[in-house]
Amino acid sequence: MDSIERLKNIFREFPTVGPRTAGRFVYHLLRSPSASVEELILALQQLKANVKLCKFCFNPFEGSEKLCLICRNPARNKNLLCIVEKEADLLSLESTKKFSGLYFILGGTVAMMRKEDISRLRAEELKKRIVQNNFSEIIVALNSTPEGRATSVLVEAIIKESTKAPGPKITHLAKGLPVGGELEYADEETLESALEGRK
Amino acid sequence: MDSIERLKNIFREFPTVGPRTAGRFVYHLLRSPSASVEELILALQQLKANVKLCKFCFNPFEGSEKLCLICRNPARNKNLLCIVEKEADLLSLESTKKFSGLYFILGGTVAMMRKEDISRLRAEELKKRIVQNNFSEIIVALNSTPEGRATSVLVEAIIKESTKAPGPKITHLAKGLPVGGELEYADEETLESALEGRK
Repeated sequence: MDSIERLKNIFREFPTVGPRTAGRFVYHLLRSPSASVEELILALQQLKANVKLCKFCFNPFEGSEKLCLICRNPARNKNLLCIVEKEADLLSLESTKKFSGLYFILGGTVAMMRKEDISRLRAEELKKRIVQNNFSEIIVALNSTPEGRATSVLVEAIIKESTKAPGPKITHLAKGLPVGGELEYADEETLESALEGRK
Repeated sequence: MDSIERLKNIFREFPTVGPRTAGRFVYHLLRSPSASVEELILALQQLKANVKLCKFCFNPFEGSEKLCLICRNPARNKNLLCIVEKEADLLSLESTKKFSGLYFILGGTVAMMRKEDISRLRAEELKKRIVQNNFSEIIVALNSTPEGRATSVLVEAIIKESTKAPGPKITHLAKGLPVGGELEYADEETLESALEGRK
């Protein structure tokens, strides 16, 4: 296999990248000056050398500490946990500046309750966090998709299994019309949720 | 700027990649084992070390020769030139196995006839190829988009400028219904072209 094919195959493993896009990436790099490719190589080396996962929430960060900036921040509410699927979801919620608790990155969702799907989640680590902390509320902030809903069921079961009744309050993100969204174009299920959640 | 941000910014320069996808790429690499990232670094180093552009058509290839496999092939028809925008277009045409001439990769298209847009094309190199060779036909195989059409006009002007009348025959790819396409769903312009090109 030549260098072009080898690199294409690696890019095809990237999320959202198909064979066509992988090819475009390689040609983009071939057209780029050598200095840009050197920069990319350096950035990759630094990423692996400097970035590690937070021992509590699994958020990637740089530094010699064990915990990320959020988990280290004494101003955060240690009784409040927000469970998200992935790093980008944490960043999205954090950018609202409306959540002051801690996060836990689950690492994925499950489509079906198969053992191999479930084993990819950080279920054991989640259990530990719940057992070792005394959360008053746990927000299960997963996508409003079939996979997200299936995973929510699983996560709720883990929470209940790991705590004695009454246990922490379990909440979910509200469902309804997106801000700026028009009623006319909303699907039925969204409207149903918007009606149910009215206040 | 930390390692995560630095790598995100580099990925954002990749074609079709926005800030969200750039983030997903970085998190994908953070989740990958170190060996995968090492493999990517190695592939990038090899790409720059081993791959060069063909001195005639600008197609990237590996080897110690000056010309790529296509340009070196004595069975190819040296009187026939096909001008394409980019490497992937060359590969698409080549995979039809119906073209036996030479290619020339223009390196882009121009939206408007501004000097800075035109300067990004390999216009001078194209002129040289046309002057130094005696092509009987030149296929201007650019996209059927506004940019592609504007660039075709420019390319045709370059061909005429570089040859004495009558010069090579200038042709374009046929426009019409895509194979498997249904009349009902074809847009008006496509149908018009399909009608005009009927035979």
